[in-house]
Amino acid sequence: MVDKPVPDATRRSEKSRRAIHDAALALVAEVGYPKTTVEAIAARAGVGKQTIYRWWPSKADVLLEAFLDLGAQTARELGQEPYVIPDTGDLAVDLKAVLRATVDELLDPRFEAPARALAAEGLVNEPLGREFVAKLLEPQLRLYVDRLRSAQDAGDVRPDVDPRIALELFVSPLAQRWLQHTGPISYEYTDTLVDYALHGLAPR
Amino acid sequence: MVDKPVPDATRRSEKSRRAIHDAALALVAEVGYPKTTVEAIAARAGVGKQTIYRWWPSKADVLLEAFLDLGAQTARELGQEPYVIPDTGDLAVDLKAVLRATVDELLDPRFEAPARALAAEGLVNEPLGREFVAKLLEPQLRLYVDRLRSAQDAGDVRPDVDPRIALELFVSPLAQRWLQHTGPISYEYTDTLVDYALHGLAPR
Repeated sequence: MVDKPVPDATRRSEKSRRAIHDAALALVAEVGYPKTTVEAIAARAGVGKQTIYRWWPSKADVLLEAFLDLGAQTARELGQEPYVIPDTGDLAVDLKAVLRATVDELLDPRFEAPARALAAEGLVNEPLGREFVAKLLEPQLRLYVDRLRSAQDAGDVRPDVDPRIALELFVSPLAQRWLQHTGPISYEYTDTLVDYALHGLAPR
Repeated sequence: MVDKPVPDATRRSEKSRRAIHDAALALVAEVGYPKTTVEAIAARAGVGKQTIYRWWPSKADVLLEAFLDLGAQTARELGQEPYVIPDTGDLAVDLKAVLRATVDELLDPRFEAPARALAAEGLVNEPLGREFVAKLLEPQLRLYVDRLRSAQDAGDVRPDVDPRIALELFVSPLAQRWLQHTGPISYEYTDTLVDYALHGLAPR
């Protein structure tokens, strides 16, 4: 497939948009959310403040889009498009694969520092926290809900299980270890979480 | 048992110590960790700065002790001393009881605001985060490790399960919902986590 020629103005604004995203992510990682002002983002990106306000109503919106874009970029690089959890027919294999990719992402310094700064702000700034959960985290969790539902259809997960709660048995431990430094993160660890969650702690 | 008479000086310093704890917890909740200075704690508690430095080397130590004291107070009020998870012989019942008590604590405003402010700082200030995890969180998690070990001895948990990872299947989801506002917290929710973790998501 041949790329269509991109008009100069569009190319210029894509370049500015990317520079603004990068500036916003770098700043929030360095100085935290409260000090990441639209002025500072504009100065760092080498654009006027008005350019930012033309595209986004607030710094929260710039950051939200920057994270969505970073996630999309990372997924493209890892060859993980489109965003569905694969269904090979083996639920354990599929969950382990996606959690291993999440481990890679959480340990990627491009993602780690800004995500941590934003998560810290979300803990004490409830409206911001709720917005980022709704727009960044929940869409990812929906993918687990979908995969667990199809596992229920296939008889691999009990029909009375609530998938939205079930996914937390392997997603939340990884999130807490990463957020709060409560333990090391590795493929072996996330594989173990999947095995424990699917088969339970009690003897069968 | 008759209480021994408390010397006046001890009573006075216990009163100061409690006032300093209360001031530290209130301040961190109101202005966050970075702005909670020893000076501000002293002013709010109505003591001299030197009184604080005589007892604690840093503000982190004041806060650590204030949280340990608050936890001990809450446990006394709830009649949960000594700090062990009861062993009634029914693991599900015991885990559900202690998680219900944790739900009460997480929703208690005396605990909620300072704990959230400190957790937020721990996310971006790794040494502080690690110290508080080691001194506040891990000792609580050890209680689950002990209870799961005795369940292994009783044959109620598979012998190949690592208790330190297993406890995360029900502790971390509650922590993430509370920290990140990813969902509501209730007794029904924590009961469900225990059932899913013990029996697994896959059909038996």
